[in-house]
Amino acid sequence: MNSVTIRELGENRALELALAHLKPGQFEKVGPGDDAAVLQSSGSLVVTTDTMVEDHDFRTHWSSGFDLGWKAVATNLADVAAMGATPTALVAALVVRQDTQIFWLEEFAKGMQAAIDELSAGCAVVGGDLALGENLVIAITAHGELHRDPVLRSGAKPGDRIALAGTLGKAAAGLSLLEFATETLIESYQDLVSIQLKPRPPISLGVTANNAGATSMLDVSDGLAKDAGRIARASGVTMALSSAALEGYFAVLEQAAQSINSRGGKANEKDWVLFGGEDHPLLATFPNNAEVPKGFKVIGEVLPKSENFVTLNSLPLSEKGWDSVAD
Amino acid sequence: MNSVTIRELGENRALELALAHLKPGQFEKVGPGDDAAVLQSSGSLVVTTDTMVEDHDFRTHWSSGFDLGWKAVATNLADVAAMGATPTALVAALVVRQDTQIFWLEEFAKGMQAAIDELSAGCAVVGGDLALGENLVIAITAHGELHRDPVLRSGAKPGDRIALAGTLGKAAAGLSLLEFATETLIESYQDLVSIQLKPRPPISLGVTANNAGATSMLDVSDGLAKDAGRIARASGVTMALSSAALEGYFAVLEQAAQSINSRGGKANEKDWVLFGGEDHPLLATFPNNAEVPKGFKVIGEVLPKSENFVTLNSLPLSEKGWDSVAD
Repeated sequence: MNSVTIRELGENRALELALAHLKPGQFEKVGPGDDAAVLQSSGSLVVTTDTMVEDHDFRTHWSSGFDLGWKAVATNLADVAAMGATPTALVAALVVRQDTQIFWLEEFAKGMQAAIDELSAGCAVVGGDLALGENLVIAITAHGELHRDPVLRSGAKPGDRIALAGTLGKAAAGLSLLEFATETLIESYQDLVSIQLKPRPPISLGVTANNAGATSMLDVSDGLAKDAGRIARASGVTMALSSAALEGYFAVLEQAAQSINSRGGKANEKDWVLFGGEDHPLLATFPNNAEVPKGFKVIGEVLPKSENFVTLNSLPLSEKGWDSVAD
Repeated sequence: MNSVTIRELGENRALELALAHLKPGQFEKVGPGDDAAVLQSSGSLVVTTDTMVEDHDFRTHWSSGFDLGWKAVATNLADVAAMGATPTALVAALVVRQDTQIFWLEEFAKGMQAAIDELSAGCAVVGGDLALGENLVIAITAHGELHRDPVLRSGAKPGDRIALAGTLGKAAAGLSLLEFATETLIESYQDLVSIQLKPRPPISLGVTANNAGATSMLDVSDGLAKDAGRIARASGVTMALSSAALEGYFAVLEQAAQSINSRGGKANEKDWVLFGGEDHPLLATFPNNAEVPKGFKVIGEVLPKSENFVTLNSLPLSEKGWDSVAD
């Protein structure tokens, strides 16, 4: 059964098998199987969508179906959390190949459910669609519920503290390790590779930050420098990062960078931390008189807009980072 | 500017240009540009997703960017309407090629907005995502609002009348004409080709049907026989269609079928009506004592479950139709 392809089984039956691995959520009134799902809804609704394409955003020889299901959920939940909202429901649109195995699809569904269970229990996959194509494409739309105003990118004020929750640079380090690809090295740094393949953004801290009065927030998907720049531009401020506060993030990656370099690679833990994406930590700003919630670490200060949008120790920091279309 | 590719411009700028063609909707509190959109929400939330893949679900030499934007919106709105809900918001995940032109993307956005304006004013595109791939992929997630119970597929009762709102068979006829492809013939039947490229499901009649007490409903996307079969199975009934009631649908397609056949093609207007998908009309059942709303035409009767799920003039009707994965 595991080697049966989607082509052989047909869309409807394949979808049924995958959906059997998913649990209903606490907001779900009508689940998959009709023209649409129906959710209980109160407050404001948050909606976000994100797409991953084979050989552009992932490689199937690095990521299993389970990993991809996990990652697709985690990255989308991070966008909901970054608005200060509670995730309620996901829908998944998948493009698969004729020869994609049902086994892969079932693993994908299991990975989605596992990520939900660990990162945001109560949320659920309420619908999906399956189509045939030449490359795998995973398009997830995530929903959340807001019982106060959303936390936008545009609310940072001079004097606010900049704080971060979640891992930073580990996913980029994991990617370097996968690309460098000696098996022993990858095994030695399984924790870093694991964050690349199955990121663990601190989803529930999104609501925590909102309740604590966060003035701006986003999830870092394209690198700290680039995403700090997004808050800076939207808010009309300068984001002044402190390298002393980032030392801890550098330190845990130093050895991995050295291991790669001593084998002829070219890695730098500071680049991973400043410019690496895909950990999806929450980057927020809090008023100076507010308590920064547990789980967030202060890494800088918001200043009035100066010549540069982002600085590190008062020096301009390049906003280079990951753009999924332009390089 | 029009010939500039997405690769040259980068994802963010390309997305901005496309979004400029979209109007905010009446339910929108925060539009595109942050981690997620925020919608005003009351009642229950309806969510559905649908995917179209280049060379599988559409061909760019038949469909312009405008057509595809229109069709993606229309088909998704039909799923929301089929629950008896009012469409409120759409998000679009697009996979484009490196060499896709900004012009195409802008036309796509214009087509989405035009479909919304004509089919469901007040709804809006509130978010989008752009990724690179080898083939165009369009994944839309549509949302709606329900102020009473949804109309499911499972509520049809023996004695109910079966009724249909919208065009039927025209999209399939249009597809045959495009495949047969003599330009003169296509021009003579522009109305049929137009329904294939830009279907016009009667979106607002979804809420009308709900208010009128519809016991079951779906939008016909895979053909009348197959979709009637879905209601029959979900409800545990037999859907008894009457060919006399379908005469009008056959009649308007007869000449197009003859034109194709007289030029060596092989077309049958009855096949188009019974087995052709993509018009996305609403197929609903209404209690015998309820008034069938204006815009719906009675085409049969719900019977207790017998040997066959779908019959035409009491004879078994094959439930063949369009399955986007299995043929």
